[in-house]
Amino acid sequence: MEDHKILAQNPVLYSFLPLFYMVWADAILTPSEIEKIRLLIDKQTWLTGEEKKYLLSFLDPQSPPSPNQLKGWLEEIKKTADQFSPEMKESLVDIGIKLAQINARSGTDKALKEAKKPLLTIEDALGIITHESAYHLRTLSNRNSKASEVTASSVEVKNITQILDGKNANIIKKVKTLISDPKFEYYKGETIQGYREQVLEWCKYLAQQGFGAIAYPKAYNGKDDMRGYFSIMETLAYHDISMVIKYGVQFGLWGMSIHQLGTKKHHKKYLHDIGTLQLPGCFAMTETGHGSNVRGIRTTATYHHDHKSIIIHTPSENDEKEYIGNAALHGQMATVFAKLIVKGTDYGVNAFVVPIRDKKGKVLKGITIKDCGHKMGLNGVDNGRIRFDQVTIPLENMLDRFASITKEGDFTSPISSDNRRFFTMLGTLVGGRIGVPKAGLSAAKSGLTIAIRYSDKRKQFGPEGGDEVPILNYKTHQRRLIPLLANAYAIHFALEYVTDRFIQRSDDDIQEIEALAAGLKAYSTWNTTSTLQECREAIGGKGYLSENRIDTLKNDTDIFTTFEGDNTVLMQLVAKSRLTEFKQEFSEINFFGIINYLAEQTKITLTEMNPIVIRSTDDEHLLDPEFHLNAFRYRERHILSAAAKRLKRHIDQGMDSFDAFNECQFHLLNVGIAFTERVILEQFVSNIDLIDKKSTNETLKKLCDLYALSTIEKHKGWYLEHDYMEGVKTKAIRRMVNRLVYEIRQDAVPLVNAFDIPESCLSAPIITS
Amino acid sequence: MEDHKILAQNPVLYSFLPLFYMVWADAILTPSEIEKIRLLIDKQTWLTGEEKKYLLSFLDPQSPPSPNQLKGWLEEIKKTADQFSPEMKESLVDIGIKLAQINARSGTDKALKEAKKPLLTIEDALGIITHESAYHLRTLSNRNSKASEVTASSVEVKNITQILDGKNANIIKKVKTLISDPKFEYYKGETIQGYREQVLEWCKYLAQQGFGAIAYPKAYNGKDDMRGYFSIMETLAYHDISMVIKYGVQFGLWGMSIHQLGTKKHHKKYLHDIGTLQLPGCFAMTETGHGSNVRGIRTTATYHHDHKSIIIHTPSENDEKEYIGNAALHGQMATVFAKLIVKGTDYGVNAFVVPIRDKKGKVLKGITIKDCGHKMGLNGVDNGRIRFDQVTIPLENMLDRFASITKEGDFTSPISSDNRRFFTMLGTLVGGRIGVPKAGLSAAKSGLTIAIRYSDKRKQFGPEGGDEVPILNYKTHQRRLIPLLANAYAIHFALEYVTDRFIQRSDDDIQEIEALAAGLKAYSTWNTTSTLQECREAIGGKGYLSENRIDTLKNDTDIFTTFEGDNTVLMQLVAKSRLTEFKQEFSEINFFGIINYLAEQTKITLTEMNPIVIRSTDDEHLLDPEFHLNAFRYRERHILSAAAKRLKRHIDQGMDSFDAFNECQFHLLNVGIAFTERVILEQFVSNIDLIDKKSTNETLKKLCDLYALSTIEKHKGWYLEHDYMEGVKTKAIRRMVNRLVYEIRQDAVPLVNAFDIPESCLSAPIITS
Repeated sequence: MEDHKILAQNPVLYSFLPLFYMVWADAILTPSEIEKIRLLIDKQTWLTGEEKKYLLSFLDPQSPPSPNQLKGWLEEIKKTADQFSPEMKESLVDIGIKLAQINARSGTDKALKEAKKPLLTIEDALGIITHESAYHLRTLSNRNSKASEVTASSVEVKNITQILDGKNANIIKKVKTLISDPKFEYYKGETIQGYREQVLEWCKYLAQQGFGAIAYPKAYNGKDDMRGYFSIMETLAYHDISMVIKYGVQFGLWGMSIHQLGTKKHHKKYLHDIGTLQLPGCFAMTETGHGSNVRGIRTTATYHHDHKSIIIHTPSENDEKEYIGNAALHGQMATVFAKLIVKGTDYGVNAFVVPIRDKKGKVLKGITIKDCGHKMGLNGVDNGRIRFDQVTIPLENMLDRFASITKEGDFTSPISSDNRRFFTMLGTLVGGRIGVPKAGLSAAKSGLTIAIRYSDKRKQFGPEGGDEVPILNYKTHQRRLIPLLANAYAIHFALEYVTDRFIQRSDDDIQEIEALAAGLKAYSTWNTTSTLQECREAIGGKGYLSENRIDTLKNDTDIFTTFEGDNTVLMQLVAKSRLTEFKQEFSEINFFGIINYLAEQTKITLTEMNPIVIRSTDDEHLLDPEFHLNAFRYRERHILSAAAKRLKRHIDQGMDSFDAFNECQFHLLNVGIAFTERVILEQFVSNIDLIDKKSTNETLKKLCDLYALSTIEKHKGWYLEHDYMEGVKTKAIRRMVNRLVYEIRQDAVPLVNAFDIPESCLSAPIITS
Repeated sequence: MEDHKILAQNPVLYSFLPLFYMVWADAILTPSEIEKIRLLIDKQTWLTGEEKKYLLSFLDPQSPPSPNQLKGWLEEIKKTADQFSPEMKESLVDIGIKLAQINARSGTDKALKEAKKPLLTIEDALGIITHESAYHLRTLSNRNSKASEVTASSVEVKNITQILDGKNANIIKKVKTLISDPKFEYYKGETIQGYREQVLEWCKYLAQQGFGAIAYPKAYNGKDDMRGYFSIMETLAYHDISMVIKYGVQFGLWGMSIHQLGTKKHHKKYLHDIGTLQLPGCFAMTETGHGSNVRGIRTTATYHHDHKSIIIHTPSENDEKEYIGNAALHGQMATVFAKLIVKGTDYGVNAFVVPIRDKKGKVLKGITIKDCGHKMGLNGVDNGRIRFDQVTIPLENMLDRFASITKEGDFTSPISSDNRRFFTMLGTLVGGRIGVPKAGLSAAKSGLTIAIRYSDKRKQFGPEGGDEVPILNYKTHQRRLIPLLANAYAIHFALEYVTDRFIQRSDDDIQEIEALAAGLKAYSTWNTTSTLQECREAIGGKGYLSENRIDTLKNDTDIFTTFEGDNTVLMQLVAKSRLTEFKQEFSEINFFGIINYLAEQTKITLTEMNPIVIRSTDDEHLLDPEFHLNAFRYRERHILSAAAKRLKRHIDQGMDSFDAFNECQFHLLNVGIAFTERVILEQFVSNIDLIDKKSTNETLKKLCDLYALSTIEKHKGWYLEHDYMEGVKTKAIRRMVNRLVYEIRQDAVPLVNAFDIPESCLSAPIITS
């Protein structure tokens, strides 16, 4: 307001200035609101007509103050606002009155008192925004925002890396050294052709280091080190993921099929050359028309006893081998899965070694190979479709560990059932379902490292006039990324567990391990997809530029949810396996059948669900691993028995059993998820119990609490529906999740650094430059 | 079992055959379970020692039956099993007893009666799986699976297309004709360079058809048809999305900034050439360091009155213009946003036209342009970074609709506040927030068309020995895709609504429309990302091959959640706008303040939450739009007032207001989402009310019900927490969602066909070949 004679006459009018500033500055007032303020001013009896006219002139939409006038008002107000202490919650009216006092010489106290009430009424009309506005009128030095603060972290990075690497530390270190070598500079070219050759070259370096044969017997250059093989997959996945898959196709799928399904004659003939990559090969199982339903493949292998040969044949286009890695360019042989026909009888799916190219790369007679072309990702892998037109192979090419042909030309096998024999064969190859999620987890770790390190240094917005704030200080940002960090740690320990179980497997527990691997594969790879999606969005446009690597990480791993078993199908397998164990529980309670079991079940759970526990919200309880484990186990048992009851009911009512399983599919999916989550939590908790160092233990305990509580929060609808918790408790859990993500945010950078991913692999300019 | 003399002696033993088959065939029995069966047989007093020995011999793990023996058993059992009617729920024991009866000559009835009990005990031990196994022993003709059934749909595709296209039908048809032309064959090359030139060429064809200038005034070759512009964006997005974005950059961002922020002199000089693409240009707002915080950009435009020029300057690398479309290659001019400095005073962000290349494409002096390089998608758009080193432009290049420089060299503007002026400028450009989600929705529709049509014909698994089943008949598959189909329809009508509102906007409702556009942009683009992810996974490996287009659809639209405003930031804006409206509600209830308002609020909601309604599960209620709307509105109001209360509490407690908003960010995000969902539902419901044709009305009503109920289901945790529903009701909602997805599945193919996407655009071989 200009130095007007009216102001000199009645300095109380200054008290309106902050409100007028609001009207023309940021606050958004509707014409009707301005009208209300006008009416209010008009009603004030303590103002003279001239004064009213003067004040109202500042509210005329037809003659707003000029930009410079408004700046002048602000300057004047700011000086006054700064006289309040940071703690004081002054309003616009307080500031206005102070302004009037400064401008008044004396004797205005009573007049100001009178002015305050109408001013407050106006302020009320402006709602809660006025406080914020008043606040913004201060200069920064006089504010108390804590938005940019980050307390120092006390995380011992090296100690955590040691715990994560565990007994695999040596091989992990070796692989990291290799992939940090300049030879492993990322492919920068634009052509698929060049990329595929680069990936092949990298795989040759890996073979030279003995990484190819590592899981094979010592007799064939190997080290009998399956655990080492998994660690290589996991560590390579910090680098180019096409390379990981090419490595897995050659040394895992192709090599392990020879190792596991073949016998000594096959090992002698092929394993050495496979391990050195002198004999590139394929694993040809999937068919176009029968993707997940492997048992339904239609390629035939017909035995001819007269010349002791087998003829491999693809009946129709729908039965071609599809998506086969190494097929489009480099593979010279393939393990082909086909229905074996002997003397007119179909003995189900068996495996055969079939040459497909000569040493020079020329495709052999009877074989047709089509290139799968450009894919969403993994373009360094040469996937192709293979068709066999009456291709003859000698009998010795049958991989005959589980079935063979006698001298008399009869089929023989120690396993009576064709299906069970096939599933036994698949069981020996279940390692793929461990390697893939491990590689996927590494990709998620890379994504989190890039996103969290960037979010810690990237600043955006901030208190008016003050410094911008690191985006990781924003609550929604913490909510997006930190629970995913907890997931990565949780899944890490679970994958180590299934690795251990797999290495120590026996006939007795192989089925349990298969279910474990299936569940963890599905859960982990879904987690990788959602983690990388969140990382992409969390770092905005920078995440869209390929140079920052979220692009390739995401696109290369997107197929992980499909290959090595479609995740939804895998979760159904887990559920069926769980129902089998359920059946065993029945037999242990003396065949009393499902109803008695469920009654028993109910008794157990009733004690858990006492009214105090379902409402309990104190910190000690919410952070108690026993509470977490009970909640996870309750959910798992409940969903499993409910699914069993549901299935039984449908079947009892005469529904076709295929239909009954379909009807319950959604529930069975949840059976698989609940089982997997329980296993993951158990492993995380028991791994933390082993950590002596107090500070590390506490840090990881927080991540574990977050995994547990954010998972419970995700399922809170279910817990509430089943009266396992009351709303007061689920709300308390939400608050606790917020608290944990905030606390862990302080440690977030050291916690991703503990993944210890080589900087040359991370490569993203947003964090390295 | 072979024709052994013991069998001839006691044919009752045949009754064990199905159980033995189970033991060796698919069922997975542990050694201890087999041991239990052995013990049971051993205990039977009605069996002779010799008979027991004979039976037990079939359970010896050391000598399993041969594969051929097992096949023989199966054949024998199958013949028997087929004698049961499809409706009968026979067990393995029933089959066994029938088998014994057939083999017995006579007089075995009593013996069989005696045998039944121990057999049933054994069967019990095998649990619920036996029924399924018994079932699988039948041949298909004698089974009653309904899994492959699909009832005919009565959807009137053309009628729905008409409703969707509405008043835009003409322009949509024109665009479809153009993009189906052979000139618009998809780019097949491998280089970015080639792709960018192809996209430019396509845009030139669009300009030739008058599509470029359509939204400009008639004086400049346009048609003043903003609605047409949006329809073009939407329809082009069925084709290459790089083209859509290039189109949007040139004719929308660049052209509309001239049109909306400039005055007649600028229109005359530039608009014609922009509309014909003779003058390719950029919209240079975003800066590297200040992505979402546009107000914080640091490029300066300093006015020099002596030679009436403005100097544009980039102070540091962090302040370069980033991700600018058309910058890397084709742009000749740019609308540059910069802080205007006049006589030493900063007047906030204003816009200026700056030449960056000459007609031959040579970058001008003082300008440095870097190519953003390869991106996750949209590689047909040449994004770049622009840096200005003291670049001089004449004063007339200032886009001066909202602010200008007087003859005396002073800054002047009808809008007093710098911030408000800037937001007013942005408000005129809000159309981008309509075009982008429209294009994103088209991508989602393409993905759904591909995934649903493929899932309808792709078969996988099926009843044992029977036909495979279309994967869309699987319940999990329906659950994955059908709600997303409902979302697409729901969002379609909401985007039409915001388009109408935008076209008819006035100063009074522009802020409301901005909030609407922001909320719908965020919600729709998130929905596009998750829809395409689900489509990718739902069609497995085929979805990973680029030829089937999910790859590009997904990667091209992934950035939609970031550009034209980061979704999370946009939802915060929506929330702040909602809080402002909230403030208006205060003033309407006579300034009684927040507490009274909330008390009022509580009264309203209590009537809604009567105990009958919160438990009601009958169909009529669950499918009642009033129930849906009430539930959505309740959630919206509750979250909004809770967020306001929370904010107020923090501020009252002395928290810095920036911190208080940060503290509530998560709730504010939900405010935005709940608001947007309510708007979407309201529009869907009211659009259906307008449909006279009964069958079409019913079909779309189902989609609307599904949108409503699946959204409520997604938030069921919230509804339960707030006692708006009881568990019995949320469970009933889940069942209803299952029923709806099943019912809509029958219409799914016609419902995607109603999107009427040109087959040449869909292009995916999995559905077109």
